[in-house]
Amino acid sequence: MTTVTALTPPSTPADICARFNATRRRTLILCDPLSVEDLMVQSCPEASPAKWHLAHTAWFFESFILREFLPGYRLFHPDFPWLFNSYYQTFSRFPEKRLRSSFSRPGLDDILHYRGYVDAAIELLFKRTLSEEVLRRIELGIAHEEQHQELLLTDMLNAFFINPLRPIYRPEEAHGESKPADAPESAETTGAEDAIDANTLEFESFEGGLREAGCGGKDFCFDNELPRHRRWLEPFSLARRLVTCEEYAAFIADGGYTRPNLWLSAGWDAVMAHGWNAPLYWTRKNNEVDGEWRIFTLRGEQSLADLASAPVSHVSYYEADAYARWAGKRLATEFEWEAVAEDRPVAGNLLDADHLTPTEVNREASAPESHGLVQLWGDCWEWTASAYLAYPGFQPLPGSLGEYNGKFMSGQMVLRGGSCATPASHIRSSYRNFFSPETRWQFSGIRLAS
Amino acid sequence: MTTVTALTPPSTPADICARFNATRRRTLILCDPLSVEDLMVQSCPEASPAKWHLAHTAWFFESFILREFLPGYRLFHPDFPWLFNSYYQTFSRFPEKRLRSSFSRPGLDDILHYRGYVDAAIELLFKRTLSEEVLRRIELGIAHEEQHQELLLTDMLNAFFINPLRPIYRPEEAHGESKPADAPESAETTGAEDAIDANTLEFESFEGGLREAGCGGKDFCFDNELPRHRRWLEPFSLARRLVTCEEYAAFIADGGYTRPNLWLSAGWDAVMAHGWNAPLYWTRKNNEVDGEWRIFTLRGEQSLADLASAPVSHVSYYEADAYARWAGKRLATEFEWEAVAEDRPVAGNLLDADHLTPTEVNREASAPESHGLVQLWGDCWEWTASAYLAYPGFQPLPGSLGEYNGKFMSGQMVLRGGSCATPASHIRSSYRNFFSPETRWQFSGIRLAS
Amino acid sequence: MTTVTALTPPSTPADICARFNATRRRTLILCDPLSVEDLMVQSCPEASPAKWHLAHTAWFFESFILREFLPGYRLFHPDFPWLFNSYYQTFSRFPEKRLRSSFSRPGLDDILHYRGYVDAAIELLFKRTLSEEVLRRIELGIAHEEQHQELLLTDMLNAFFINPLRPIYRPEEAHGESKPADAPESAETTGAEDAIDANTLEFESFEGGLREAGCGGKDFCFDNELPRHRRWLEPFSLARRLVTCEEYAAFIADGGYTRPNLWLSAGWDAVMAHGWNAPLYWTRKNNEVDGEWRIFTLRGEQSLADLASAPVSHVSYYEADAYARWAGKRLATEFEWEAVAEDRPVAGNLLDADHLTPTEVNREASAPESHGLVQLWGDCWEWTASAYLAYPGFQPLPGSLGEYNGKFMSGQMVLRGGSCATPASHIRSSYRNFFSPETRWQFSGIRLAS
Amino acid sequence: MTTVTALTPPSTPADICARFNATRRRTLILCDPLSVEDLMVQSCPEASPAKWHLAHTAWFFESFILREFLPGYRLFHPDFPWLFNSYYQTFSRFPEKRLRSSFSRPGLDDILHYRGYVDAAIELLFKRTLSEEVLRRIELGIAHEEQHQELLLTDMLNAFFINPLRPIYRPEEAHGESKPADAPESAETTGAEDAIDANTLEFESFEGGLREAGCGGKDFCFDNELPRHRRWLEPFSLARRLVTCEEYAAFIADGGYTRPNLWLSAGWDAVMAHGWNAPLYWTRKNNEVDGEWRIFTLRGEQSLADLASAPVSHVSYYEADAYARWAGKRLATEFEWEAVAEDRPVAGNLLDADHLTPTEVNREASAPESHGLVQLWGDCWEWTASAYLAYPGFQPLPGSLGEYNGKFMSGQMVLRGGSCATPASHIRSSYRNFFSPETRWQFSGIRLAS
Repeated sequence: MTTVTALTPPSTPADICARFNATRRRTLILCDPLSVEDLMVQSCPEASPAKWHLAHTAWFFESFILREFLPGYRLFHPDFPWLFNSYYQTFSRFPEKRLRSSFSRPGLDDILHYRGYVDAAIELLFKRTLSEEVLRRIELGIAHEEQHQELLLTDMLNAFFINPLRPIYRPEEAHGESKPADAPESAETTGAEDAIDANTLEFESFEGGLREAGCGGKDFCFDNELPRHRRWLEPFSLARRLVTCEEYAAFIADGGYTRPNLWLSAGWDAVMAHGWNAPLYWTRKNNEVDGEWRIFTLRGEQSLADLASAPVSHVSYYEADAYARWAGKRLATEFEWEAVAEDRPVAGNLLDADHLTPTEVNREASAPESHGLVQLWGDCWEWTASAYLAYPGFQPLPGSLGEYNGKFMSGQMVLRGGSCATPASHIRSSYRNFFSPETRWQFSGIRLAS
Repeated sequence: MTTVTALTPPSTPADICARFNATRRRTLILCDPLSVEDLMVQSCPEASPAKWHLAHTAWFFESFILREFLPGYRLFHPDFPWLFNSYYQTFSRFPEKRLRSSFSRPGLDDILHYRGYVDAAIELLFKRTLSEEVLRRIELGIAHEEQHQELLLTDMLNAFFINPLRPIYRPEEAHGESKPADAPESAETTGAEDAIDANTLEFESFEGGLREAGCGGKDFCFDNELPRHRRWLEPFSLARRLVTCEEYAAFIADGGYTRPNLWLSAGWDAVMAHGWNAPLYWTRKNNEVDGEWRIFTLRGEQSLADLASAPVSHVSYYEADAYARWAGKRLATEFEWEAVAEDRPVAGNLLDADHLTPTEVNREASAPESHGLVQLWGDCWEWTASAYLAYPGFQPLPGSLGEYNGKFMSGQMVLRGGSCATPASHIRSSYRNFFSPETRWQFSGIRLAS
Repeated sequence: MTTVTALTPPSTPADICARFNATRRRTLILCDPLSVEDLMVQSCPEASPAKWHLAHTAWFFESFILREFLPGYRLFHPDFPWLFNSYYQTFSRFPEKRLRSSFSRPGLDDILHYRGYVDAAIELLFKRTLSEEVLRRIELGIAHEEQHQELLLTDMLNAFFINPLRPIYRPEEAHGESKPADAPESAETTGAEDAIDANTLEFESFEGGLREAGCGGKDFCFDNELPRHRRWLEPFSLARRLVTCEEYAAFIADGGYTRPNLWLSAGWDAVMAHGWNAPLYWTRKNNEVDGEWRIFTLRGEQSLADLASAPVSHVSYYEADAYARWAGKRLATEFEWEAVAEDRPVAGNLLDADHLTPTEVNREASAPESHGLVQLWGDCWEWTASAYLAYPGFQPLPGSLGEYNGKFMSGQMVLRGGSCATPASHIRSSYRNFFSPETRWQFSGIRLAS
Repeated sequence: MTTVTALTPPSTPADICARFNATRRRTLILCDPLSVEDLMVQSCPEASPAKWHLAHTAWFFESFILREFLPGYRLFHPDFPWLFNSYYQTFSRFPEKRLRSSFSRPGLDDILHYRGYVDAAIELLFKRTLSEEVLRRIELGIAHEEQHQELLLTDMLNAFFINPLRPIYRPEEAHGESKPADAPESAETTGAEDAIDANTLEFESFEGGLREAGCGGKDFCFDNELPRHRRWLEPFSLARRLVTCEEYAAFIADGGYTRPNLWLSAGWDAVMAHGWNAPLYWTRKNNEVDGEWRIFTLRGEQSLADLASAPVSHVSYYEADAYARWAGKRLATEFEWEAVAEDRPVAGNLLDADHLTPTEVNREASAPESHGLVQLWGDCWEWTASAYLAYPGFQPLPGSLGEYNGKFMSGQMVLRGGSCATPASHIRSSYRNFFSPETRWQFSGIRLAS
């Protein structure tokens, strides 16, 4: 049992400083299994090279914290401010995203020096009395780096899948492998025996009514989680667990990818355009038409049989929607999800559990306080039926940081709950992830609703 | 004054029969100014040739009414069922949309015969005692044909704009031109003088609260307007009129199309990709950088000066959103709009008014019962901030007709209120139009909210 | 027997005038089977609407002859000079080619008036004493119109193929159909008993040596046929007839489209990109994998069995090259072809024979003076192994007419000999046609060489 | 003076063995200035990562020599035969070219082991008595590796240009830098001073007549240089030197990139599509419209003033053709070029001279035996007016090696003479290089003819 409960977020400068250091360290730890060459690969338009993630996360602290708040701070390199800018139009020009794979220079050593330089400067900064604004910015920088930790892993999964030799990020964990020493204690090591069954899918009912959504506490959150506001919910029910690989394989076997009436029109267009016939990373053994399904993970390739009870992952919104229609169900709205999640502690197969792949339900058995729902946190991001739009009264952050979230409020769907690549400290019930409905390279899965 | 109030929708078979006949007749009247060659043009991916609209609307009655409900009905032509199918995957295969411009055969005469044949068969059908289901299907067919009337006009506007000679659909109406004889009486010929000013933009406040949305009456509506359900609205305010061409020109002059921070990220991508620098159909005189703006309409090309007080039209959602941000406002949600519109009679610059282009506010002065809002109906469809998604408990129609609306619930934004090309009998407060946010070929405009 | 020998080209003004009139008339005759709507269709990027061909050929006479040489000539319409310009950059701007299908206005009546107006002006011009230059320009205009006659037919074949109903340009000729009254007498109605066999393919040998290529006479030719110059030819041999549909079907049945080693690299890329598995216009009955091949022609759809002995047509250069490699042969160079053709009279299945489709060899039996080769003229253009490049000392015509041929000397291959859609008066042994190697919408076939 | 004359190619096994070893060594030397990360970059569709070049050149020896001719040879790795196959369809499947940048594994160490393993096996092979066929294959492998040496340099030039920081492959050579120790002695260190002037362009006349083309000796050549055959040449003249950067800048300043009449139609399309306004690697200082031209080279960025007398490089065929038209000249055919080069010793600014960039004429002054022509060898490949086509009687090599050259004989133009990145031992008068006319990433320049 290696599940994890997130601690209440820290709020003192010392706590933030500790989180800063731990976060920065973890980014490097995630690179441990990677070669200098691995760090260069950019294998799909959504991805960036891991080396770029290393540099860009340092750039964020330099650009939005050190330059503004550390008196006398000198830039590490005169070109880095625009070189490692991702998309902040009002900050500076920036290179086209696809060029990131050409950044052989600066070399890894330079990037590591850059990180060390920034870390040292932040350490200096923490020696000063810091305003609320500075502390919030640092928390934002930590949250930003946590997002890139997740991206680094999902990008490398794609990179290793694209590589014809299919390298393995970290070989499958031995039975009884212990969780990493620094993972927080799980709140769920007791009870919950056999509460959830991977073979039958049960639903839990909820009453709805006038509920509040959005972040309500004083802890850090992104601007897109604000303001807290009211939503009316009709009664609804949620599946107690995520859809499994085996269930999804039944959808495929039933002609799921060949029946247009199961799909949104744009979804069917995507099926035709890309030739989708299974989730991303599913391949047929020997490429035979009826070959056994193989599923590529950060732990290497596994058989469908081995992952039968694990949540299906790497499906697009279109596939999640089509699956739900086939099953006679639907996806939840983000507000239904949030109403259910709001009072449940963050615990599950998150990055801290170090599984690095969604795991079957019995490995993360439901705690009593889960009211029968599992996999709410971690394993896979859950596609919701909600478009990613502004909350009533939404105000983006002032200045360039206003570009962080607000400008993407078009053409994307909300996902909730985090994945096996999400740091436990990063996720919360009001957290809104968002991707284009065609996206499949994230750990994105399906929870049914009705 | 040629504004129009929609009558209460008919409900007896005789009423429906009369509406059927009037609708079928109007489709042909709309083609009066067009040559056989005009009817062949398909000038953008969104558009279809007018001749195709003529055929497809007959196909709809044949496919979903006559074949099912008129005993002994014989197909007009064995190939027409699939040839004029637009997108109903479960009905039959269908030709690629772009091929519609190659349908020189069947010729116009054949299509007109097809229409006559279908009309005669529907006349026969009306001689029978018709079930509720049949009557609802016929009403659906009428609504379908009304949609294609609007598309026919917007498609021809594009066709004539693309034609380098810029032909005119119908020359500009003479001053004092009277409205067509068959236009219903306007409810707004008295009072409300000068209530709305084209030079300053005023807002009307609304309280919000728990409101109902969706069609609640017994009259015909589309499946996507159902079920009626509750929505919580925070207090809000709406602009009393649409944004004018002059106001939009100020946005352009202020660098609106050159400042990425005013735009959604996908909107800015569209500006760059398409080189947008003004609404569709706006061109600079002599193509000079500082040339006076000219605006192409179904009435021919007009100067910006002439249309200064008319609503800006043919903007994408991205442009509407960017304009609102520039103005320090936002767009309304579809639920805010519907809450305001619900108790206001349908009246305005709709197709029946025969202006064929959005008109300045003083031509359609506000009636007392409008509570100070004008242009709610007609002129331009109003982009809302709402993504086009299913209402809670949404059920698509059974069978192939379920493909009418439901499968497009992805990647589109809702527009409300109808345009100068929308039949008055077609629109209602719960009516949800939807287009991709890049779309500009519809009469789509901007009402600000805050 | 409806073969045709071209007369020696005329050279007196009266002769040119007669040819002008006959050519202009024939363009209209070719449109006889077409409806106004057919004339609007533009079904592939290579094609133009027939109505555009009607207008553009008038434009050519107006732009390059009347405006320069008829004193006091007034333009028919101020916009036509740029509207119907095809690609002469130095003459005026011109619309994008794909927009030609939007030219519903000017209507057909206007275009026919335009043609009449131009014809009348040319008639006036012929009343004057004309310089050599003017006469040459008129001959160029006639040749230009002849090219567009061929294009009109090939474009309509494509238009009717793209139309899902597959209309027929002119139904299959009845057995014993007589040739058109105005077709010149055939030189080949005698002799030639069974000289050529459709079942076995024989080759004729030629000595090579230092030969001359390019137009050497005083009659009209294009600039790209000049100057006449020397070429050294090694000994070679040419097949006595074109490759037949049956022979090509054997190539398909032998996996021709699935074996990359038979193809040029760019050819294989084209096979993969377009999914080619047969010549253009070949379809499988009922779209079944093993369905009988059906071949669409201007005479309607025919079975492979019916066309077994007819030359295969509508193949790309890549397919011609792959077929030759499969057969252990090669394609001839344009100089080999010209050396063989130079002293053979123009006679064969050309447009004047009115078959409108390539015909089996025994319908056009070899005349004694053909030295055993048939189908050298007409039936199909023969892809050669020569890239379309300038002859040594090539000089394009002065002024805008220099854009006629010279600027296309890149990326294209030379074809020789004319097709069933080429006017007999148009073709000659030095004539160089040229198309991109991917092109298939022309009547293009294969003669083997070794 | 660091020019170089190629030695007569060796012919004994010992000579070939020595050339093998020297060639393999030089590939590694060329990588000396590169980091592991540099070796991963693939910056344009034409290019491959340098690491891939290292692996693929080993693969060639393994696949076509060791596996066939070394008894008992065992593959280095079971996946390498298909992983490092470039395009040999009949040999094995192969990865899409664009995936090469994802090959982080095998790592550089593995690739270097692979090279060492192959080298050792070839050493074993040389201990045996080798047939003519084996020796020819080894020579082919050497020539193949020499081609990839040139590609490695041109690919890295592109990679460093694409990198926003513009790294330098090797800093500009100091004045008086001596040539590398292992460069062969130049034959041209005496005489010929001031024979060629960079400021005026002189032409040398040649008689033409019936000449032979193609490789005639017994030394190694590619299959596309055979068979030697006769060509008739009209009298012609060639410029004594290549077009300089300064001359090309005058073409730009004269509106060269804005006047469509100077261009082939496909060339003008390329100018419009890519926004070309100068050769590849030319940029304006500060991106200002009138900024001074800067030229990026393997020696770093230099000013136009510094390179004024150096040959212009990195132009497409279209640009070379347009420049020639602007200058009132033309490009030579490959046969004219070969006739001139045939009896001139290979000497010039080739890879062995180690300049790594085209250099001004006076650095490589014409030797007496050059008859007044310079830069015939090295500096830049010279675009010819000849399409890359088969010679009469061309036979590709048997087996998979037949795919080396023959299948590319479509859509490409011939270049002659080698560049500053071509090993001196690689080039000869019959050598035919070929690229698509749009290609600019090679060292490709212009010699005028008339």
